[in-house]
Amino acid sequence: MSEFPADPNLDLLGEDTPLLEGMRTARAIRRLKPDPVPRALIRKVCEAGTFAPSGGNRQPWFFIAVDDRKKRRWVADRYRPVFQKYIQPAMDRGKRDNFSDRLMRNMRAALHLAEHLHEAPVLLFIAGFTRRDEPQIQALYPCAQNVLLACRAVGLGASFTSLHRAFGEECDRMLGLPENIPSAVMIPIGWPLGRYGRPPRKSIDSKLFFDEFDPSTLQAERPIE
Amino acid sequence: MSEFPADPNLDLLGEDTPLLEGMRTARAIRRLKPDPVPRALIRKVCEAGTFAPSGGNRQPWFFIAVDDRKKRRWVADRYRPVFQKYIQPAMDRGKRDNFSDRLMRNMRAALHLAEHLHEAPVLLFIAGFTRRDEPQIQALYPCAQNVLLACRAVGLGASFTSLHRAFGEECDRMLGLPENIPSAVMIPIGWPLGRYGRPPRKSIDSKLFFDEFDPSTLQAERPIE
Repeated sequence: MSEFPADPNLDLLGEDTPLLEGMRTARAIRRLKPDPVPRALIRKVCEAGTFAPSGGNRQPWFFIAVDDRKKRRWVADRYRPVFQKYIQPAMDRGKRDNFSDRLMRNMRAALHLAEHLHEAPVLLFIAGFTRRDEPQIQALYPCAQNVLLACRAVGLGASFTSLHRAFGEECDRMLGLPENIPSAVMIPIGWPLGRYGRPPRKSIDSKLFFDEFDPSTLQAERPIE
Repeated sequence: MSEFPADPNLDLLGEDTPLLEGMRTARAIRRLKPDPVPRALIRKVCEAGTFAPSGGNRQPWFFIAVDDRKKRRWVADRYRPVFQKYIQPAMDRGKRDNFSDRLMRNMRAALHLAEHLHEAPVLLFIAGFTRRDEPQIQALYPCAQNVLLACRAVGLGASFTSLHRAFGEECDRMLGLPENIPSAVMIPIGWPLGRYGRPPRKSIDSKLFFDEFDPSTLQAERPIE
């Protein structure tokens, strides 16, 4: 359990960031400075996570913020090969099929994060109670989204991954998590090397329908698999 | 596809709401006025949803905003009995086991919403592409959380449910959704009868751990089943 007084200087940080504009510019930040992040600030962004809704207000989440150098290295050493195996086919396909510069840049940033994960000052894991023996992953996602937005508000860089589940059981043991509270999400957090910005998105007018979906829109719309 | 110009008056609405304080006071609003909500405002809160992250930036979401009176009645007539069946055992247990006033109030508000669902001016469904034939429910939850927060920013009341899945296939047909784009979330939206406020949450200090989870905390922590 975290036991330290809130830091009054950090309490005010980010309080004037506007909600809607913050949300529109909460681009995933995957290039991070190795400089430390105060624990009081991690507490602040995690507290924002607790204001997410949950079924029956069960608040199933727990936050484990890893800032210990050895533990971060432990995670990074396992994450790197998993990520490389995941991204390599996509990068090969990208070169072959001429993926857009934006998409290639995105993949390179994710690869950069994987290769530098041990340097990220905080690896935040969000874990949650199972229900009827099943992990309740989706129950943690609104909470994780709040944490990402709170990072945006206070000026921290963050991004979302669940690929650590490839070594999830071992990872959960390392984190001291019992079997009925598996981790679902990992959010590497640090001060951003780059800038916040509006991420590339399709127009809302191709995504929003009133009263009835129009399947003819799907000819233009094709998910990247 | 939605096809109308953005409304410049509504474009500014909510832009000064602060992110962190808005997040902390984004209580679920289940008592709604029947007054109509401009479509341009629904477009605005859905656009905020599109700035959520998604794996490979696939943006799997589609929004179907139902404001047609007959269709809302259609949904409400099916939702009401499903919800009553879901909540009744919890309310009985609450009376027997003396649940807190807060929890009972919460359940009564949810029951109120179910009984008045046909009066909610907009029922917003969020649907998303399946992947390898599986619904990607969790992929839509960060998007749904953005929509809830955007509603908070502009002053709309909203709450989150997935219980409509009990009649999901029939509902998706009514919405014109193909089988590979099932709806996952329903968000009833309207002008709030009550006020925003800080929802009851456990202290972050019972939820946050540095470097290692402490299982001794679980004796105090018991999820409401």
